[in-house]
Amino acid sequence: MAGQTPPTMQDVQSAPAEVALSIDRVGVKHLMLPLVVRDRAQGVQHTVARVDLGVDLPAAFKGTHMSRFVEALENWKEELDYHSFKALLTDIRQRLSARKAYVVFRFPYFLKQASPKSGSPGWMSYECTLTGEMAGETMVFTLAVDVPAMTVCPCSLAISDQGAHSQRAMVRVMARFTGFLWLEDLIEIAEASASSPVYTLLKREDEKHVTESAFAKPTFVEDVVRGAAQRLDRHPQVNWYRVEVESFESIHAHSAFASIEKTK
Amino acid sequence: MAGQTPPTMQDVQSAPAEVALSIDRVGVKHLMLPLVVRDRAQGVQHTVARVDLGVDLPAAFKGTHMSRFVEALENWKEELDYHSFKALLTDIRQRLSARKAYVVFRFPYFLKQASPKSGSPGWMSYECTLTGEMAGETMVFTLAVDVPAMTVCPCSLAISDQGAHSQRAMVRVMARFTGFLWLEDLIEIAEASASSPVYTLLKREDEKHVTESAFAKPTFVEDVVRGAAQRLDRHPQVNWYRVEVESFESIHAHSAFASIEKTK
Amino acid sequence: MAGQTPPTMQDVQSAPAEVALSIDRVGVKHLMLPLVVRDRAQGVQHTVARVDLGVDLPAAFKGTHMSRFVEALENWKEELDYHSFKALLTDIRQRLSARKAYVVFRFPYFLKQASPKSGSPGWMSYECTLTGEMAGETMVFTLAVDVPAMTVCPCSLAISDQGAHSQRAMVRVMARFTGFLWLEDLIEIAEASASSPVYTLLKREDEKHVTESAFAKPTFVEDVVRGAAQRLDRHPQVNWYRVEVESFESIHAHSAFASIEKTK
Amino acid sequence: MAGQTPPTMQDVQSAPAEVALSIDRVGVKHLMLPLVVRDRAQGVQHTVARVDLGVDLPAAFKGTHMSRFVEALENWKEELDYHSFKALLTDIRQRLSARKAYVVFRFPYFLKQASPKSGSPGWMSYECTLTGEMAGETMVFTLAVDVPAMTVCPCSLAISDQGAHSQRAMVRVMARFTGFLWLEDLIEIAEASASSPVYTLLKREDEKHVTESAFAKPTFVEDVVRGAAQRLDRHPQVNWYRVEVESFESIHAHSAFASIEKTK
Repeated sequence: MAGQTPPTMQDVQSAPAEVALSIDRVGVKHLMLPLVVRDRAQGVQHTVARVDLGVDLPAAFKGTHMSRFVEALENWKEELDYHSFKALLTDIRQRLSARKAYVVFRFPYFLKQASPKSGSPGWMSYECTLTGEMAGETMVFTLAVDVPAMTVCPCSLAISDQGAHSQRAMVRVMARFTGFLWLEDLIEIAEASASSPVYTLLKREDEKHVTESAFAKPTFVEDVVRGAAQRLDRHPQVNWYRVEVESFESIHAHSAFASIEKTK
Repeated sequence: MAGQTPPTMQDVQSAPAEVALSIDRVGVKHLMLPLVVRDRAQGVQHTVARVDLGVDLPAAFKGTHMSRFVEALENWKEELDYHSFKALLTDIRQRLSARKAYVVFRFPYFLKQASPKSGSPGWMSYECTLTGEMAGETMVFTLAVDVPAMTVCPCSLAISDQGAHSQRAMVRVMARFTGFLWLEDLIEIAEASASSPVYTLLKREDEKHVTESAFAKPTFVEDVVRGAAQRLDRHPQVNWYRVEVESFESIHAHSAFASIEKTK
Repeated sequence: MAGQTPPTMQDVQSAPAEVALSIDRVGVKHLMLPLVVRDRAQGVQHTVARVDLGVDLPAAFKGTHMSRFVEALENWKEELDYHSFKALLTDIRQRLSARKAYVVFRFPYFLKQASPKSGSPGWMSYECTLTGEMAGETMVFTLAVDVPAMTVCPCSLAISDQGAHSQRAMVRVMARFTGFLWLEDLIEIAEASASSPVYTLLKREDEKHVTESAFAKPTFVEDVVRGAAQRLDRHPQVNWYRVEVESFESIHAHSAFASIEKTK
Repeated sequence: MAGQTPPTMQDVQSAPAEVALSIDRVGVKHLMLPLVVRDRAQGVQHTVARVDLGVDLPAAFKGTHMSRFVEALENWKEELDYHSFKALLTDIRQRLSARKAYVVFRFPYFLKQASPKSGSPGWMSYECTLTGEMAGETMVFTLAVDVPAMTVCPCSLAISDQGAHSQRAMVRVMARFTGFLWLEDLIEIAEASASSPVYTLLKREDEKHVTESAFAKPTFVEDVVRGAAQRLDRHPQVNWYRVEVESFESIHAHSAFASIEKTK
């Protein structure tokens, strides 16, 4: 499906719709893009994004002009911050003559994390999703980040003569907020709520520390989701949040999960 | 995380919560199960399901008893219909002493479809999702089915001297309704809205027919989503629907998409 | 791409190839099918399969007749055992006039497993892959099964004052063998090689037992892969095997892995 | 699982193995990493990689030291070329005191492609896999790239009064070679073998051109795999290749596939 019409070619999209229903959202999905993102430690970092772009479509028009989404993205400067993201939303709404615009960026965000005892550095990667929705002049931005963490089961620890099962869990924190919020802030909230953060590089003294500190703070998925929710409740900039925790139970082939959502 | 407590073992879950926040939903995810489903042509069919089960948790309790979800599923009779699904929701709510219960079944549903000219039979598989949410005495059921179909691009057909690009698309129809609704009804709505259904077994005369009939009915994702929405609008039993169409464009590496949602 | 040619339609596939190269394997992928499989406890079980079918193609022919693969599958009786699988391979080779035939079935296999102390039953699902390759009169069958299990880290256990990290692992056992081999045999080999099997339903006394027995038998991925390899080495029917272990480390966001392959 | 041993901590990995079997490959999987790759047009480009690292392990040792893999990667300079990749393999072999080393990098590779008529630029992304295996002093490198492309069915075109079904296909080209080979070379081979390349940004005149040129060059998966194989046969640097084509048939819910592998 293509875009601008040379004089001699039919503009099928601008024809009237056979079924006169307005469409909530129409656009393109899974565009891949190199991306530059702001970063608290380094200033900026390079990553890659998967992008979805959409608009609403009134009942009167047969089709949207799909190539205009790609043109908007090509004209965009590939450096993601609040202003550039807002500019992209605005540009899409204008190019497509739409009332609403919708943009999603999904990208891995990298932090060089130091191990807890030896301070050995290792790259950690966090899947992030930035969603922007513009309706008229109103804009809503939602930032989400998937943070891997460790849970030690409090029940297993209490009832067993030795040990307790632990496992990797994924903590997804989604937030809407005023002003500027670092991805690092949401990552810290998620990591602080589990039994332990996870690390890429752990020397022996680090592994001992992670094991012991995780066993000193056993958490159910219920504890993790509440801990993150409480921290988001107290965060002065956050006005809406959703936390989802999935624990890949090591004693089962299935997961435990919990979620809390709140408009403050 | 386990369940009933022998007298000598600590019931950690029933302890008071450190953070007194109520949890919207807590439970287990990705349980696998053999399943029997009602089927318009054969009476019943055998398939397999991936199941999520959850409840809400008041602020006062530290944890839910995860093993009770699995017990509820084990005691359930493995034949899915309206009454058995409702019984499972009710059983979970009672076993977990919860106000809300939540059940999701995801399963492939098989239909032996005849090809359009030679009538050759072939198995088609449709991914279905049945979601049930009970809050007090109120129950909401949502049925969703992913229907593969074919789209021929109207723009490409209009502007090209020969041919037009076509591709596979996925039409997801989600509906809430009164009374009993066959999965077959939603599948037919999705297939009727695209350029052509897809088939598993096509002999040469069938392939000619599918090609020609699809080219006689070119559709944008906008046309497919509107066509399905109109059919759902007119369906007397449906009181809420959502349609999502994703077309895996053959001239691009990305998809086109469209969605409409409506409470009638 | 279609099959038998009515008299008036061109058989494009039988035309000479533009590039006269023989093709190793050509066919269809990801066909979905209800399936009945032999089962040690119940006799048979119902499941669903994803199927790939292929043949070789000599340099002289432009194309294979794809619909014949589907016809072979439709004519097949949907009950999987050694004889029916061999019959399907033979049928495909004949229908496609090929020298080689290739069939893969992937399906979840269900076992009702009892928990270790209370004996509570719960469905476990194991992803299985059965591959058959026929070249002339020679046939090679390979059976593979993915078995979730639990590993407790021996290093973490040795160096920590309390606890040790544990996690879910996936043990993939692949084998070629003489005579008949139950999937249950391969599953038992995998489970016996890890720190503990995993279960779907664990009551409190079971969770205590699983935790304690897993901590009494800590295993690196190296231990698991060697334990399974040794059991397969000693199995009188197995003449080739491959074991792959992936441990979803709970202290990392990445996995540890190990593999051993051997022709006996 | 951790690495260097402080004096007071037990080195469990260096203990003798309970089961004295040598392990083919042991290591870490799914490490995420920012990466810089050489690029024909721009010099270098930034992307992200998923990395697997492994070694062999003699029968005498209980375990490998997993943290050394991560240390090797952390010490590596994050700019991927022949020399740095070889240096990483060598470093891993030395750090782990192994005879064999194994490294895999998977990353999206970006090219700004111009549309065929209007010359409009758009980012295309290609999934690449670079595998290195070192055994003693022998090294084998394999480069693979997944190239999306378009196929128009020759059979459907020949037998239908109007149109022909087309679809997206994925062409995977894998090659071993002497000297230096650009990823761009393998991408061009794949694209030249299908009915048409795919593009991210197509204006109306481009869409017309792509449609018409694809319909002027209908291809079965057999044609695509042979075309790519012939080009790789003739390429003076390539000494081994494998081509796999999967076509996501628009008239079916399943795929057609073909593969050719050759040591020259």
